[in-house]
Amino acid sequence: MTDRALLPTGLEDVLPIDAQYEASVADHLMSTFASLGYDRVKPPMIEFEDNLLQGSGEAISAQTFRVMDPASQRMLGIRPDMTVQVERIACTRLVNAPRPLRLSYTGQVLRVKGSQLRPERQFGQAGVELIGSDAHSSDCEVILLAVEALTNAGAKNLSVDLGLPSLVPAICESLDIDDETKSQLRTALDRKDAASVKALGGKAADLFSILLDSAGPAKQAIETLKSLKLDGKAQSLCQSLISVYELAISQSPELNITIDAVENRGYEYHTGVTYTFYAKGARGELGRGGRYVAGSGEAAVGFTLFIDSLMRALPKAQAPEKLFVPFGTDAQESAKLRQQGNITVNGLQDESDVSAEAKRLGCSHIFLNGKIEPLVG
Amino acid sequence: MTDRALLPTGLEDVLPIDAQYEASVADHLMSTFASLGYDRVKPPMIEFEDNLLQGSGEAISAQTFRVMDPASQRMLGIRPDMTVQVERIACTRLVNAPRPLRLSYTGQVLRVKGSQLRPERQFGQAGVELIGSDAHSSDCEVILLAVEALTNAGAKNLSVDLGLPSLVPAICESLDIDDETKSQLRTALDRKDAASVKALGGKAADLFSILLDSAGPAKQAIETLKSLKLDGKAQSLCQSLISVYELAISQSPELNITIDAVENRGYEYHTGVTYTFYAKGARGELGRGGRYVAGSGEAAVGFTLFIDSLMRALPKAQAPEKLFVPFGTDAQESAKLRQQGNITVNGLQDESDVSAEAKRLGCSHIFLNGKIEPLVG
Repeated sequence: MTDRALLPTGLEDVLPIDAQYEASVADHLMSTFASLGYDRVKPPMIEFEDNLLQGSGEAISAQTFRVMDPASQRMLGIRPDMTVQVERIACTRLVNAPRPLRLSYTGQVLRVKGSQLRPERQFGQAGVELIGSDAHSSDCEVILLAVEALTNAGAKNLSVDLGLPSLVPAICESLDIDDETKSQLRTALDRKDAASVKALGGKAADLFSILLDSAGPAKQAIETLKSLKLDGKAQSLCQSLISVYELAISQSPELNITIDAVENRGYEYHTGVTYTFYAKGARGELGRGGRYVAGSGEAAVGFTLFIDSLMRALPKAQAPEKLFVPFGTDAQESAKLRQQGNITVNGLQDESDVSAEAKRLGCSHIFLNGKIEPLVG
Repeated sequence: MTDRALLPTGLEDVLPIDAQYEASVADHLMSTFASLGYDRVKPPMIEFEDNLLQGSGEAISAQTFRVMDPASQRMLGIRPDMTVQVERIACTRLVNAPRPLRLSYTGQVLRVKGSQLRPERQFGQAGVELIGSDAHSSDCEVILLAVEALTNAGAKNLSVDLGLPSLVPAICESLDIDDETKSQLRTALDRKDAASVKALGGKAADLFSILLDSAGPAKQAIETLKSLKLDGKAQSLCQSLISVYELAISQSPELNITIDAVENRGYEYHTGVTYTFYAKGARGELGRGGRYVAGSGEAAVGFTLFIDSLMRALPKAQAPEKLFVPFGTDAQESAKLRQQGNITVNGLQDESDVSAEAKRLGCSHIFLNGKIEPLVG
């Protein structure tokens, strides 16, 4: 027999008062999404594995727990991510719903292995997908929505890092750089390895070096991007980043934006501007998203927030005040106290010292002789 | 490749507006639990299988999906039920928390097979456990809490069926009825098979027949139970049922209570009074619970509500009203509309006919010239 207190590594029991806090944070996120017309959907925890591994799901295939389904005699996957599921809903059950389609979701996901930055193998996601618009205003809407949701949930000192992972491939393509070099170049750029970038870049070495150097605060990076001589797809990608930035900053002038036009890690699936959300001082990213092409061929943007990372960026949970209601108190009276907003804790039997009992149970107040009295000491 | 629209049997995508409705129903349940001092906990979706199969978990062992954990090289189970997990938390991590300990939970569970009454293989549970009190007032508290929570969530015409599954075994024991006959008798009683009960009951045939006949509205059943000549454990069990009933009805005189003292199905784990919750006209039970002995040896009561069953007992979801905010509207103005409680849907590009666009997107109102106007037709 396993020790009952033992849980597999990366899995945990969330206890009072943290579990309540986490739930209320997820509620805040979902309410903000709903306030901008994002309708909630709820895909299942588990589905046919090949449907989970499509599109952006492919990258986390190795992270997916699989079980045999006796009903269908086929393999099911426990979702390691919800974004693929929500995109699937948009492209199947809701294929005839008017576009742009705004969907939101929250739920738990499971992964086979934790990472260094996130040892948890189960965590909550909350996010949105906006399907069917290629306008820069849709990028801008979801970026500012994520920031508004995180702010409403209590996060402070937020910043957004804008990326453009398809820019480097577009430049490589226009310059006929071979695949081997392209892949080495990507790695060098992701590692911010300026020497290798210079060595591998060929005739575009200067351009890549400038892009690498430009990463940082948006105002300066945008100046650099505007000064670049690009053409074709690279030019239009670059212009989309500039437009999204300018729209976002015009609507939210206080927003702290950084730009890294060459970063690629984890954004292989994205086709336009990407967004990564941070809070100053908090470990890892709070969420990420960007522009992609849905399975239906539709232009789409979305983001997902990681509730575990967000909890680490928030102040500690505060225990609520509780009111002890001694045994024998009239049930109607006790119900009235709850209607007034009190949390009541019923005494279940006669106690000689009700105040001591109330304190033992962690109550802050006691209901005595028809009155709410604070417990002292 | 699997058709993307295809989900395994018994699993579903919950779509707008049902997903939001379901989430708000779970919120209502949890808020009611919290208002009586039940602190939320959140166990993981998956844990070592033998910990899931302890106590009441044993009965649904065959319903548990299992996966190999590469990290521990051991079998994990995906939870088919949360009650065992919450009881585990009470007996391990919270073993030193003051008693009585009040815990609440909600979350999704997965089962290998659906049943006839519940074809779903994934559904939500929400419930409470009250650990460390053998007082009848604790049975009464959780029964009335379930009814209050269901009522707050919108359920109507509720009824509670009280049971006493350990009564028949106690009578059998006191009469030295052999195990073979005892088991046949249980089956006959569960099937309400009066002829077999008479044939199998031996010298207790009359007693069992009276118990079987007594099932129904509480007032009459209680009269019958009070008239029985029992002794030892059977007498004390019967008295506990009577006391719990009398306490509950004194606190909630309008509550519709029925009693079935011989029903056993699904309550093998319970040691005292059991409770099953119904809504008139809704298929199946909304929830169930009862008194048991926790792994720590402590007296405990609890119940779990089935959110899928509850949803079937509630009126249909209502779509919220949405306000279309044409492209180019000032972001601050749009934020103000949301602060006033509106759901805003941003136009993402210039439209020649904004009213038509607003209607196409399912909005009920439009923000024009600084005013909220209803959309007609």
